[in-house]
Amino acid sequence: MSIERILDYAHTLMGRSIQTGDVVIDGTCGNGHDTTFLANHVGKEGHVYAFDIQQEAILNTQRRLNTQGLDQQTTLIYDSHAHIQKYLQNDHHGNIAAAIYNLGYLPGSDKSIITKPEGTIQSVESVLATLKKGGLVVLVVYHGHPGGSEEKDALMSYVTELDAKNYQVLYYGFINKKKTPPFILAIERLK
Amino acid sequence: MSIERILDYAHTLMGRSIQTGDVVIDGTCGNGHDTTFLANHVGKEGHVYAFDIQQEAILNTQRRLNTQGLDQQTTLIYDSHAHIQKYLQNDHHGNIAAAIYNLGYLPGSDKSIITKPEGTIQSVESVLATLKKGGLVVLVVYHGHPGGSEEKDALMSYVTELDAKNYQVLYYGFINKKKTPPFILAIERLK
Repeated sequence: MSIERILDYAHTLMGRSIQTGDVVIDGTCGNGHDTTFLANHVGKEGHVYAFDIQQEAILNTQRRLNTQGLDQQTTLIYDSHAHIQKYLQNDHHGNIAAAIYNLGYLPGSDKSIITKPEGTIQSVESVLATLKKGGLVVLVVYHGHPGGSEEKDALMSYVTELDAKNYQVLYYGFINKKKTPPFILAIERLK
Repeated sequence: MSIERILDYAHTLMGRSIQTGDVVIDGTCGNGHDTTFLANHVGKEGHVYAFDIQQEAILNTQRRLNTQGLDQQTTLIYDSHAHIQKYLQNDHHGNIAAAIYNLGYLPGSDKSIITKPEGTIQSVESVLATLKKGGLVVLVVYHGHPGGSEEKDALMSYVTELDAKNYQVLYYGFINKKKTPPFILAIERLK
């Protein structure tokens, strides 16, 4: 297909903005797919900070990293991504190349445990503050679950108000579906 | 920059869906940039039908094609893209790989000559009817000029209603600008 699907395009964007040795963030490690993707891309000289509020997600991701020999360059953090700033090493502040979030709930898991608008926006704000020039934040927004529409609306209000001199915000999504498919918001720091 | 700009991404999408020997359509040849891009991609075994309602646009494009030796595989048509069907060779019906439109006005020219919602939708409908499976229509929508917002609204209503079983419709656009930057609607035929 000529048009990349949502998760493929999220990885295309991340891959394009990450080089070996970079420091990156996985805001929601979930089943660890993005975490391993990132750890592979930054290599042993780089670093991945991966967050989740569900122990199950942390354990799944840990297993996946172990199997692939990627734990050395990864710090798994069993806490909300809203507290990113307090976990970063000093020399990583202001030096983040990219961050990715899957917003909504952990697929295949308890749908009552969802990301919340306040925590998400607080987290995105703190990541933007520590992003390097040219750095990228990719938000994959699932919003079909209860509470999803509120998070989506809060995020849209937040990102559309970001100063166009400093950031460009892309919307990438399929708009002719009857259901509510996920879409991407990508924020690039310009200067 | 990690996120491709609008015109770059339009070409990325078109490039991905076109191969040597394909038959494609430029709905609005304008200054001929897209026409030459397409003619280069399909090569001498392929064919480009390029439309414009302004003689100036046809002449500019003709010159550009001549200079680059691309006129053999191109038919320039001084008529509205709403009449696409009547210009296609019989064996090209149902065999179109891709089409691109720049909707709005010809940059650097008379802003009172604009594409109109009815003609545009009629044209997109007839292109979709003649697109091959996996084929792609890329609409670059300029909407900051008088009449632009009406055309945008009509298009959005039209594309969001396209049956998701047969087509997927992508919105690609920057959403934190104060002005009204162009955005992309891309329609891929699935079956």
